[in-house]
Amino acid sequence: MKYGVAIFPSKKMQDEANSYRKRYDPHYALIPPHITVKEPFVLEDKELEATISELREIAKSTEPFPLSVRKVSSFSPVTNTIYLKVEPVDELLKLNEKLHSGNLPNEQTYAFVPHITIAQKLSDDEFSDVFGSLKMQSFDMEETIDRFQLMYQLENGAWTVYETFTFK
Amino acid sequence: MKYGVAIFPSKKMQDEANSYRKRYDPHYALIPPHITVKEPFVLEDKELEATISELREIAKSTEPFPLSVRKVSSFSPVTNTIYLKVEPVDELLKLNEKLHSGNLPNEQTYAFVPHITIAQKLSDDEFSDVFGSLKMQSFDMEETIDRFQLMYQLENGAWTVYETFTFK
Repeated sequence: MKYGVAIFPSKKMQDEANSYRKRYDPHYALIPPHITVKEPFVLEDKELEATISELREIAKSTEPFPLSVRKVSSFSPVTNTIYLKVEPVDELLKLNEKLHSGNLPNEQTYAFVPHITIAQKLSDDEFSDVFGSLKMQSFDMEETIDRFQLMYQLENGAWTVYETFTFK
Repeated sequence: MKYGVAIFPSKKMQDEANSYRKRYDPHYALIPPHITVKEPFVLEDKELEATISELREIAKSTEPFPLSVRKVSSFSPVTNTIYLKVEPVDELLKLNEKLHSGNLPNEQTYAFVPHITIAQKLSDDEFSDVFGSLKMQSFDMEETIDRFQLMYQLENGAWTVYETFTFK
């Protein structure tokens, strides 16, 4: 089964992100707004328990950290993805590292850029329009993150939660 | 904020339910297939911690129980809702009771009928067609449930997980 690890920001930040996702993100209906801290990976049923133990240890060794969003950014020209840029605080970067160490699958093939996607798979024209207007905007959202969620993917592409891991 | 308590069945059962929900349930995109064990209720932020303590105690006093689906049923003529009928085993009924006792909001105004909705808000004709064909079908799904999830609702009607509570 395919699993992933995500952080959900507060309802307020999710509502803000959804106001863009509704129009610009075809994944809008598949999962609420989130920060992916571990990209999708495949686990056999028999591997699940050991993985959960590792995730529990990682959560225990993680301190709650601030989640700040000040502006949007994009992965252009690689993809036409626009996202709320999440400040890369140490504790979040360390969490991402820990989630790719030990016996956990290490599928991460590029640098971790913490973000909340709000638009993707746009045409070039649409991308220019939307990003052009959004990049002028400043955001001022800050909150505290104290947990991550292990999710699994259904056949229709949607994600269901399996378990919550709260920090110490 | 509006919260609710749900049980998600296995991926297999969710995929089966989604094969119907995709066509017949306008809530398809708002939450994965689930059993509602506590209807939506409102909590102030300051009430959240105490509620979570209660939910934790309830989970600790609950034994894993079998979830069996043998057939579909409906809430007709009250509503044109069709659902996978979940066998009302004692441990599930007791869990529902416990979730409406103590200091927890007791908003339940009708008898608890454990179910996984697969179709709702159908026209009368559509309902007759779909239910007429589904009620002839037998299902043979059984699995073990060992957790419930506290969810909260976003402005767009979608639900995000807050925390998982695993049984003892």
